[in-house]
Amino acid sequence: MYVQEPIAILDSGVGGLTVVKEVMRQLPREKIIYFGDTARAPYGPRPAEEVHRFTSEIVHYLIQYRPKMLVIACNTATAVALEDIRSCVSIPVVGVIHPGARAANGRTQTGIIGVIGTEGTIRSGAYEQALKQLSSSNEVISLACPRFVPLVEKGNFRSEETYETVRESLESLKQRQLDTLILGCTHYPFLADTISEVMGKGITLISSADETAREISTILYDRNRMASNNELPVHHFFCSGEPGMFKSIAQQWLGEQIDLTPVVWQVPNIV
Amino acid sequence: MYVQEPIAILDSGVGGLTVVKEVMRQLPREKIIYFGDTARAPYGPRPAEEVHRFTSEIVHYLIQYRPKMLVIACNTATAVALEDIRSCVSIPVVGVIHPGARAANGRTQTGIIGVIGTEGTIRSGAYEQALKQLSSSNEVISLACPRFVPLVEKGNFRSEETYETVRESLESLKQRQLDTLILGCTHYPFLADTISEVMGKGITLISSADETAREISTILYDRNRMASNNELPVHHFFCSGEPGMFKSIAQQWLGEQIDLTPVVWQVPNIV
Repeated sequence: MYVQEPIAILDSGVGGLTVVKEVMRQLPREKIIYFGDTARAPYGPRPAEEVHRFTSEIVHYLIQYRPKMLVIACNTATAVALEDIRSCVSIPVVGVIHPGARAANGRTQTGIIGVIGTEGTIRSGAYEQALKQLSSSNEVISLACPRFVPLVEKGNFRSEETYETVRESLESLKQRQLDTLILGCTHYPFLADTISEVMGKGITLISSADETAREISTILYDRNRMASNNELPVHHFFCSGEPGMFKSIAQQWLGEQIDLTPVVWQVPNIV
Repeated sequence: MYVQEPIAILDSGVGGLTVVKEVMRQLPREKIIYFGDTARAPYGPRPAEEVHRFTSEIVHYLIQYRPKMLVIACNTATAVALEDIRSCVSIPVVGVIHPGARAANGRTQTGIIGVIGTEGTIRSGAYEQALKQLSSSNEVISLACPRFVPLVEKGNFRSEETYETVRESLESLKQRQLDTLILGCTHYPFLADTISEVMGKGITLISSADETAREISTILYDRNRMASNNELPVHHFFCSGEPGMFKSIAQQWLGEQIDLTPVVWQVPNIV
C-alpha cells in the first residue's frame, strides 16, 4: 500500500529546515508540511513544561492536515515531549535525538562521544540516556552552546563573529578524547563547516538532520508508507512569527522558492 | 513495554555473522539466534525459486523460538524472499538491501552508486529498484563478484589469492565515476580491507552489516521493542552443515566462544 499524505515536521524556528533539506534530498517523493514557531523561538532556554505545551499546540495544528508521520525536528522539544506525543497519536513520531545517538553509537570507535546542544537539551540528559540505553559502555561528554541558535536565527552563518563564537564555545571540548561529535540541535548544521574547522579532522560530526531523514525513510519503509508518486510534491510551510526573515532563510537554505502561510497563535504567549 | 525475545538472524552460511557482530556491538543488550544454512551455501548461483524455498524453511525453523524480529542477513535471500516473508509473519522483517540502499542514498554526493553482490542479487535488480525508489536521479552501476563468497566460506580473508581475486573482479568498476560502493553481500565485509585498498580512498564503502544493525535499532525503537536488561544476553547459533568450520569462522570473527547446535534438514536437498 502506498500513501501520499504529508510528513509533518515541526521546530521552534528555522533549525528544522536542516531536516527538511535532507528529507527533500533523501526522499524527494515525500510531501512535507513544516511549522516553525518563530514567534516563540528559541525553545532552548525555556522551562520544560512550556516547551512541552508549545510542542503539543503545534502538533494539534499540524494533525488537521492528516500527516502520515510527525517529526519533532527540534532537540529541545524532542527531549521534553517526544515520549508523551508518541503515546498520544496513532501515527509514528520521530524525534531528532535517537537518530543522532544511533548514528554516533554505530560510528564511534573509542566509545567516547561528544554532544553539543541547547541548555534545555543538555540539561535533560536525553542524549546520555539514549546512548547509554544502546550501550552502557558509551562515555558521553555534553556541552551546552547557548550562543549558536541566535546566530542562526539571524541568518548569520559565516562571519568573524560566528567563527569566534564557535571557537570560544568549543574550547573545553577540544581537550577531550572524543572521536565523534553529535550536533545535538537542528540549527547547528547551518554552522557545520565552522564547527568542523574548529574541531579538526579526526572528529566525525553527526548531524541530527541527515540521520533523522534516514530514519524517517527506514520507518516509512517498515510501515509500508513510502510515497510512490513520480511527480515532485509541493511542500507547504507555516511560521508563527514575522514571515520575511523565515522566508529569506528558508529559501536560501533550501535553494528554492517556498509556499509560506503565517500563523497567528490565538492565545498570545506572554513571556 | 520492554521485551527480551530474541532477534532471529538467518543467512546461507557465515556471511550473516557480519550482521551479528554489528548487532552485538551496536545493540549489546539484544539476544540473537542465528541460522547459517551452510549445507546449502552459497545461495548466489541458485535459482530464485530455490532460494525462496530455503529461506522459508529457515524462517519456519526460527519462528518456533518466538523471535521479536526476523533479519534476512543474506542479500540473495532478501532479493527474492523479503516481500513475501514480510506479508506472511506478524513481526517486523528486515532485509539487508534497503538499509544499504538508504545509507548509500544518504551519503552519495554525485548520485553515482556502485553495487557489488552475488549473481543472484545483481540479476534480481533489487538494489537498483531500492535506490530508484528513493530517488529516481540515482545512477546505479552493478557488478556480480561470484568469486568472493567461496573465499570467505573457506576462511580465506587475507592472502595473495584473495587480493588478486578482488583486484581482477573490481577492475571494470574502477573505470567508473562512482563515489559510493555498496558491499551488497553480507560476506563482503570479511574482505572490506582488501576491497577498500583496491578501490582507493575516494570511495565510501557501505557495509550492509553496519547499516542493517542500525536499522534494526531504529525499528525496535519505533515499535517499542528494545531490550532493557543489564546482564549480557547469551546468543545461540544453528548451522545445517559441518559444524567445525562454521564454529571456527564464527569464533574468529566474533572474538568469542559460541553456543552452536548442528541442524540436519529432514528432507535432504538434492542439488
